[in-house]
Amino acid sequence: MQIALLGGTGDIGEGLALRFAYDTDHDVLIGSREASRAETKAREYETELDSRGRTVDVAGHDNAAAAAAADVVVLAVPAYHLSDTVEAIEDAIDEDTVLVTPAVGMKRDEDGFHYNRPGAGSVTALAAEAAPEDVPVVGAYHNLPAARLANLDADLGIDTAIVGDDADAVDTVTRLTEAIEGLRPVDAGPLANAAEIEAITPLLINVAKNNDGMHDLGVRFE
Amino acid sequence: MQIALLGGTGDIGEGLALRFAYDTDHDVLIGSREASRAETKAREYETELDSRGRTVDVAGHDNAAAAAAADVVVLAVPAYHLSDTVEAIEDAIDEDTVLVTPAVGMKRDEDGFHYNRPGAGSVTALAAEAAPEDVPVVGAYHNLPAARLANLDADLGIDTAIVGDDADAVDTVTRLTEAIEGLRPVDAGPLANAAEIEAITPLLINVAKNNDGMHDLGVRFE
Repeated sequence: MQIALLGGTGDIGEGLALRFAYDTDHDVLIGSREASRAETKAREYETELDSRGRTVDVAGHDNAAAAAAADVVVLAVPAYHLSDTVEAIEDAIDEDTVLVTPAVGMKRDEDGFHYNRPGAGSVTALAAEAAPEDVPVVGAYHNLPAARLANLDADLGIDTAIVGDDADAVDTVTRLTEAIEGLRPVDAGPLANAAEIEAITPLLINVAKNNDGMHDLGVRFE
Repeated sequence: MQIALLGGTGDIGEGLALRFAYDTDHDVLIGSREASRAETKAREYETELDSRGRTVDVAGHDNAAAAAAADVVVLAVPAYHLSDTVEAIEDAIDEDTVLVTPAVGMKRDEDGFHYNRPGAGSVTALAAEAAPEDVPVVGAYHNLPAARLANLDADLGIDTAIVGDDADAVDTVTRLTEAIEGLRPVDAGPLANAAEIEAITPLLINVAKNNDGMHDLGVRFE
């Protein structure tokens, strides 16, 4: 399977790219607004993987080219870039593409971080609204600790809640996720249930800020 | 210390009463709108504890009498009873009482359970607004699995995020919580950070509903 990480040059895009390449036999494509930046990062990831005995090709393209070549496209971009990223790839994806959205909207004040729920109900719902009607959208990877994800020496031992209205697309993302060591997919139902997942991310930041020894946190449902 | 569980005859009130009585040396008082119902439940809890070799007195009172005798008062009532419960005890509590609010607002539709955020920002904030100005309010125990909490054979191994604006009150609740085996308190900052904690409860229900073998879930920050 071909997995494109759009925004795969930063934040959780980097970690997902490395984990998919290290833990699975799927092909990983990095997407960025500038192809040259994606190519540079792809070489970095190949070097990192090679140093761990995993010699694989990682492709780097602009977002549209990466999406066009992919079966699963992860929109690993900030919430405020979601709509223009979907717009940039809409002619490159179709009903056989699974679009995955991990973005979360947050705001910060003197008390801490807070969930910034958009009028659409969730950022996941915003992505679904922006996507072409026939392209299935799945919400996943909202609460992953970026630095830990990108450090292949770090154990995960965390969950990611998955939402979606298309059972086949949810199944595809669930199986992909299971292949990452230490990351357990849990089914949270339809897309309409995304807001409560997204809201965990600011809480994880608040908990990390207020407790010594807790940082770069994920969540487990036990 | 005297710990009153108002609404201690059902839901998480029962579990907290049993765990505090079993795991700590604090005195547990059950509060209910009807004193007779609280007394009946208190006898049941004593019998349950006695069967496990823990012979303690559990008191049962109406809510105001339970609150008047307590250092820490847990409002283990549904969100829609929060205001009238605080009203019923407001003359019985003062600045030396710590008021703890675990209530969460939820609504259900065909997709699942959703967080029903009140205009005050959170149910925890609602409780703080309802409380007399000099009484410190702490949010805690929002995401606890009720049946598992009330089953003393069940391991917890879960976290509870605590919020509050009064450092001494937060410290009191944190130390109480640490005394319950398998329940880890984590500091999530000021009361203004409560909504993201409350929103986890409907998500836990959605996850339990959609995943075989997962039920009566709590959360861990890892």
